[in-house]
Amino acid sequence: MVKLKPRFKLWLETEDGYVFGPGSFELLHGIQEKGTLKAIAEELNMSYRHAWGIIKEIEEKLGKPIVVAHRGGKVGGGGAELTQTGKELLETYLKLKNELNQMFSKIDTVKL
Amino acid sequence: MVKLKPRFKLWLETEDGYVFGPGSFELLHGIQEKGTLKAIAEELNMSYRHAWGIIKEIEEKLGKPIVVAHRGGKVGGGGAELTQTGKELLETYLKLKNELNQMFSKIDTVKL
Repeated sequence: MVKLKPRFKLWLETEDGYVFGPGSFELLHGIQEKGTLKAIAEELNMSYRHAWGIIKEIEEKLGKPIVVAHRGGKVGGGGAELTQTGKELLETYLKLKNELNQMFSKIDTVKL
Repeated sequence: MVKLKPRFKLWLETEDGYVFGPGSFELLHGIQEKGTLKAIAEELNMSYRHAWGIIKEIEEKLGKPIVVAHRGGKVGGGGAELTQTGKELLETYLKLKNELNQMFSKIDTVKL
């Protein structure tokens, strides 16, 4: 007998396609938790420059800022925080993700 | 104002990882509908050999057959049909997919 588990990937799209998914969620969640981009970029094994690139790409697609950087913040040279749009984006994704997780937790392993 | 729609990808895993997702679903669904692998492989723009390869890979992971081919079936040289395991796999995936689609259809577009 083989046991199968359902898995999902969740993302958000505009009419023009992909905007925000698991990777960008980790990034924004980390910024909210840590108050800096540097620490979460390191944790996700990406360069600071690459992490900023991801954020800039989302901002371009949305046409508004989601993160603001400021000098003189926490250790490591400057902190970062989410804008109102960034917070809403994060919360929207998290809410949907939690709903899906809850739904999937009710599904038994499929046995074939 | 930017409108965002949530999207998902669904797949089934064993302990060893990925087994069955959107592509293999299309393939099995097509076999069930058309009674032949050739027609659905063409429709999905893949070679007959590649389509068989996908099926063989799933069968290897499950340790049981999901499709049986037989000569002298429909036009195009031999038909193909799902085994009981193949049918259960297809139905399991379809049921989950429909549940997710239903859940997502209730979610309004997110406006940021």
